[in-house]
Amino acid sequence: MGIDHKKFTTLNKQTLIDYTLQLADTTLILAQRNSEWCAHGPILEQDIAITNISLDLLGQSRYLYQYAATLINKSSDKQINATEDSLAYLRTEREYKNLLITELPNGDWGQTVLRQFFFSVYQALLFEQLQKSSDEQLVAIAQKSNKETTYHLKWSSEWVMRLGDGTEESHARMNNAIDMLWEYTGELFIPAEYEINSAKEGFGADPSLLKQPWLQKIKDVFEEATLSIPSDRFMQTGGKQGIHTEHMGYILTEMQSLQRTYPGAEW
Amino acid sequence: MGIDHKKFTTLNKQTLIDYTLQLADTTLILAQRNSEWCAHGPILEQDIAITNISLDLLGQSRYLYQYAATLINKSSDKQINATEDSLAYLRTEREYKNLLITELPNGDWGQTVLRQFFFSVYQALLFEQLQKSSDEQLVAIAQKSNKETTYHLKWSSEWVMRLGDGTEESHARMNNAIDMLWEYTGELFIPAEYEINSAKEGFGADPSLLKQPWLQKIKDVFEEATLSIPSDRFMQTGGKQGIHTEHMGYILTEMQSLQRTYPGAEW
Repeated sequence: MGIDHKKFTTLNKQTLIDYTLQLADTTLILAQRNSEWCAHGPILEQDIAITNISLDLLGQSRYLYQYAATLINKSSDKQINATEDSLAYLRTEREYKNLLITELPNGDWGQTVLRQFFFSVYQALLFEQLQKSSDEQLVAIAQKSNKETTYHLKWSSEWVMRLGDGTEESHARMNNAIDMLWEYTGELFIPAEYEINSAKEGFGADPSLLKQPWLQKIKDVFEEATLSIPSDRFMQTGGKQGIHTEHMGYILTEMQSLQRTYPGAEW
Repeated sequence: MGIDHKKFTTLNKQTLIDYTLQLADTTLILAQRNSEWCAHGPILEQDIAITNISLDLLGQSRYLYQYAATLINKSSDKQINATEDSLAYLRTEREYKNLLITELPNGDWGQTVLRQFFFSVYQALLFEQLQKSSDEQLVAIAQKSNKETTYHLKWSSEWVMRLGDGTEESHARMNNAIDMLWEYTGELFIPAEYEINSAKEGFGADPSLLKQPWLQKIKDVFEEATLSIPSDRFMQTGGKQGIHTEHMGYILTEMQSLQRTYPGAEW
């Protein structure tokens, strides 16, 4: 399945593995963050909604890790046995390629829904492109995930409008959230080397091409929400290359503690 | 909706409220505990399964809290405004009536699935009875929840069999789990005063009648799992009356911290 691996150079294999892992790590870490709301209020109904989004993202990351594991196990002469779980839970911080925006703390509810909105717009555009990938597996995953993302986008944009165009306090909080998150949105569109190569080879999407449609969608929703896009500012980068914020270590410690304490699959 | 509230004495109202809150608290606290596994490994696939169970239980608790809130708001002359969220998040420890078994720490994976199994067998029998309740709302909630519980029971009993009849280590861990949890199973069947009165009035189930069928189901599954039911021992009680283990305070602190920090519904 997927591209013809016999014709595939080693360099290309590594590119496809890195590209797939970046997609997997990004969805896993956002799932992890969103899941912190599960049964933690303040609103039961919305706990359930954001936890459902977590589960969708976890499901997407599973497909991606499974694919990455297959690629890794096939590409190596050594007896490697990568699994979705070893990739999700047992790598070091420098090996995770998730976007920085996904690892930031949830902040308040406004910041949580704004991040989800930024991410869902990006993901919707990305999956649209990946449905044209030369790699059948990525096409299948993008198709499967697309419906979920459409729902996340609808849900999060409705919240952005509701809070932005809500009370004085909710509006102020949304402005704070924009101020906190904006500098982490640049990284979405600055390609890592493996993204450039993935796009060249036809199996990945060039993220720089997603920037304009992303901005347009943000603008449309912000207009309804009576919010404004900030002027240009310094943009944080590094996540795609494994260089993370100080928050990442804490997430991994928490995520990995159970895996390291109860290597349950092995009982 | 529900029973005819005009004919309803004040005492009966309070009984129905207490009974409904006990059901709600029990499902909320177990949802909260199970949700701690969300995106925390060790197995992505099972994280998703246990988190889905959490969401089902959260959903059930919402219906029950909504109903309790309606009853409370109707029954009082004072201007009370109970909501599902205020009941779920803003009461004191002594007001929560959940079964003690739901508030115990997750322990290892074996202990988590064993608790879910004990609980799901109990809940399946309870919902079967509640479908014959004189209270239409409780009937509706029991009917809606029954399908979910059937799935939880299937899933958890399969895990009990898999781990009990698994490796030497998984078998030993299941024995430890039984040893940890057994003394908390008595409370399920020892009626609180409001349960006795609820059964008398026809809207609640007498939990003491659930004990034999519960034991029989446990025995059947344990036999397949090569596990044994412990001999009689001291049984912990108190949860139904608001007297909790030392773990409950920590759960509430964590559950309520966000609600108290971000009274988000009010923005």
